[in-house]
Amino acid sequence: MFDPFCPACSEPLLYPFEARKKNFHLEHESPLERFLDFLPLSEIDIRLDLGAGGTPLLRLPNLEARLKSPILFAKNEALNPTGSFKDRGSAVAVQKAVFLGIRRIGTVSTGNMASSTAAFGARAGLETFIFVKEDTSPEKLAAAAVYGPFLVAVEGDYGALFSQSFELGRRHQIYFANSIDPHRIEGYKLTAFEIFLQLGRQAPDYILVPLSSGGHLLGLMKAFLELKKLGWIAEVPVFVGVQAEGCAPLAQAFAAGDETFIRLSKAETIAQAISNPNPPAGNIVLRWIRDNDGKILAVSDQDILSAQKILAEAEGLSVLPASATTLAGFIQLSRTISFAPEDRVVLVPTGTGLKSLTADDLSRTKIPRTSLENLENTLLETLQCPRLV
Amino acid sequence: MFDPFCPACSEPLLYPFEARKKNFHLEHESPLERFLDFLPLSEIDIRLDLGAGGTPLLRLPNLEARLKSPILFAKNEALNPTGSFKDRGSAVAVQKAVFLGIRRIGTVSTGNMASSTAAFGARAGLETFIFVKEDTSPEKLAAAAVYGPFLVAVEGDYGALFSQSFELGRRHQIYFANSIDPHRIEGYKLTAFEIFLQLGRQAPDYILVPLSSGGHLLGLMKAFLELKKLGWIAEVPVFVGVQAEGCAPLAQAFAAGDETFIRLSKAETIAQAISNPNPPAGNIVLRWIRDNDGKILAVSDQDILSAQKILAEAEGLSVLPASATTLAGFIQLSRTISFAPEDRVVLVPTGTGLKSLTADDLSRTKIPRTSLENLENTLLETLQCPRLV
Repeated sequence: MFDPFCPACSEPLLYPFEARKKNFHLEHESPLERFLDFLPLSEIDIRLDLGAGGTPLLRLPNLEARLKSPILFAKNEALNPTGSFKDRGSAVAVQKAVFLGIRRIGTVSTGNMASSTAAFGARAGLETFIFVKEDTSPEKLAAAAVYGPFLVAVEGDYGALFSQSFELGRRHQIYFANSIDPHRIEGYKLTAFEIFLQLGRQAPDYILVPLSSGGHLLGLMKAFLELKKLGWIAEVPVFVGVQAEGCAPLAQAFAAGDETFIRLSKAETIAQAISNPNPPAGNIVLRWIRDNDGKILAVSDQDILSAQKILAEAEGLSVLPASATTLAGFIQLSRTISFAPEDRVVLVPTGTGLKSLTADDLSRTKIPRTSLENLENTLLETLQCPRLV
Repeated sequence: MFDPFCPACSEPLLYPFEARKKNFHLEHESPLERFLDFLPLSEIDIRLDLGAGGTPLLRLPNLEARLKSPILFAKNEALNPTGSFKDRGSAVAVQKAVFLGIRRIGTVSTGNMASSTAAFGARAGLETFIFVKEDTSPEKLAAAAVYGPFLVAVEGDYGALFSQSFELGRRHQIYFANSIDPHRIEGYKLTAFEIFLQLGRQAPDYILVPLSSGGHLLGLMKAFLELKKLGWIAEVPVFVGVQAEGCAPLAQAFAAGDETFIRLSKAETIAQAISNPNPPAGNIVLRWIRDNDGKILAVSDQDILSAQKILAEAEGLSVLPASATTLAGFIQLSRTISFAPEDRVVLVPTGTGLKSLTADDLSRTKIPRTSLENLENTLLETLQCPRLV
C-alpha cells in the first residue's frame, strides 16, 4: 500500500514533474480527461467519476464595488459532487486504486473528506473505510453514512489515528487516501488548470486559499509551477494561505520566519474544516510559500463570520466558514498591499454552506410571521410605501 | 408585472417557439450564453449568474448491472449553485428582471426555490421577497435566509398564497417568479439541450423526472419539441413524470384517462419537494404527456427510500427523496415495459441529499465507536479476516 511520507525526511511525498510533452485535451467534458497529461494516470475510466470539477470562476462585481478592490473572482469549489474540493482528490485516488487492482479505500477525516471518499468509493465499487473523530457531528456522520461505508468513530488522539491508518492500511490492504495523499494533491492541480483556462490562458496575480493540512494549496501551486516549467505562464501567482486565528500554526511560523512549524496543543475556531493543529504538509507549505513570494495569514472568527455574510448577501454565495477565510484574508491583505486596479485576485471557496446550516444560523435571522390576510401590511412595512410613511 | 396565467383559459402561459434561425454557441462556458438563441432574452449579463447548469450526465453502470437494465444515465441537477434544478429557472428570471429594469423579485416556496431565488436575487442586487409556509423547517428557512432576503412565514392556505403573490406583485412591483413562471420554464430547457449534446447530439429514449407543479417537466419537454421542430432530432423522448403516491393528482388523472386533474385536499409523503396537491401546470402536463406518448407514475414512500439508498450506495449519488422517485419510477416501469438493451434512459435527480440529511438519517445507521487501541480489532471484525474466522 502507498506510504505517503518520505522515509528519509518524513515529509509528504509528491509526484515529480515529468518533462514529457503535455497538452490539454479540451474536446473532452471531464476534467480528468482534459488534463490527463498532467496526472499520474495512464488512462481514465470515466464510469468511476461523479463529475468532479468543471466548477465556475465567478467575477464578483458587487464585492469589487463595495471593497473598491481590484478584479475579484471566486473559483467555487463548493460545486463539486459532494459539496467540497475534496472530490477533486477522491476522483484521482479511485482511478489509481482501481487501475492498480486495489479493492479497499479509506480516509481519516472530520467531515468533507469522509463524505467525498465514501461517495467515490461507492461509485467505484470499493470497500470503503472511514475513520472519524469521536466528536464528529451527527450531520457530518450522516453525510458520509448515506453511501454505506464502514464508518467508525475513534476515541483518542487524532494525529495518532492519522498515522495509524497507514499502518492498518498496509496490514489490511486498504489504501488510505488522507489529506496529503499524493494522488489527491495531483487532483487539486486541475482546479488551477481550469482557472488558467477561464482567465483566457493566463495566471491570476493572487490566489487566496484556506490552509489546513496543506494539500490543497500544494496542489494548486504545483499546477502553476508546472505551467511555468512548460513556459505557458511567466510567473506563478502570489499564493496566500489563510488560517483561522484559533488554529494558525503555519501563519505563526511564517510570521516568525521559521522553517518549521510548532504543533499546537489545542485548536478553537468556527472554521472546523481547517482546524488542524498539526498540518502534515505544513513544512513543505512554509518552504513553497517562501520560495514563491507567497504569504500566510490568520483571520479572526469574527472576520470569518462577517465575510461569510458578505459573500452570501452581496454575491449569492453560501459557503462554509473555512471558505469565507479567503474573503476575510483578502480584506486583511488590502490593508497592507496596494493592489493595481487591473490585478486579478482569485478566492477559492472550498465547501458549500449547506453543510454548516444549523438552527443557530436561523436564530441569527428574524423571520416574521403573518397571516394571509395581513400579508400586504407586513410587506408594506418593509417596503416603506410612501402611502404609509 | 408579469401575469403567468392566460386570462382566457387560466392555464400557465408559455413562450411560443420562434421559428428564427437557431444555433448553439459552444465557444462559451455558460449555458445561458451557449443556448441564448433558445431563450426569451436578447443578451446575457454573465455577472448576474452563479454558474447554473453545466451539470454532469453520469452513466450508471452499477445500477445497470444490478437491475439488468438498458443504458441508464443520471443528469445530476443537484449540482447547481444552490443544490437544485430551480437555479436554472432563477438564472433566466433574474436576467429578464434586470433587463426590464425590475428591482424586486419574489417567490412562494416550501424549500428549494426559496434558497435559489434568494441567492440569485442577492447576486443580481435585487430586493428579494420570499413567502414560505408557516410550517417550513428551520433548515430550509436558514438555507434561504443566509442571502438576506425579506422572508416571511405565512399562515393560511398555500394555494391562496400562491395566487395572492401575483396580486401583491402587481401592486408593489415585485416580479413573483413562482414554480410555473414562463422564464423558469425556458431555463429548464437548457438541461435538455445539455443532455442532447452529452449524448452526442441525440435524444435519449426515455426521460424520468419528478413531477410536482409541472414546470420542470414542461421545460424539458418543450426543449425536445423545439429540437424536433428544427429537425435536429426525429422523435421526442418518452417522458415519464413521477409522483409520490401520497400526493399524486396527475398520476391519478392520467390513470383514469381524464383531461383535467382533481385538486387533493391533503398530501402526505416524505418527498416534500414534490408534495403539491394542486399543481398549477397540471392540466397542460396531462395534455402534453398524452400528446407525446408519455406516462405519469406514482411510487410509494417505501420505494422512494429504497431507491434513495440504492443511488447512494451503488453509484455515490446522494439526492433528495423527491429525486429518488426517478429511480423508483424506472424500477416500476421495468415491470411493464420491455426495454431494448440499447435504449437510453435518463433519470433527472433534481436536489441534493445534503438538504434532507437529519439526525433521522443517522439514526438509521449504526456507527460503531472504538478506541484507538481497539481500532484494528474493530476493523478485523468487519473484514472477517481469515485469522479470526
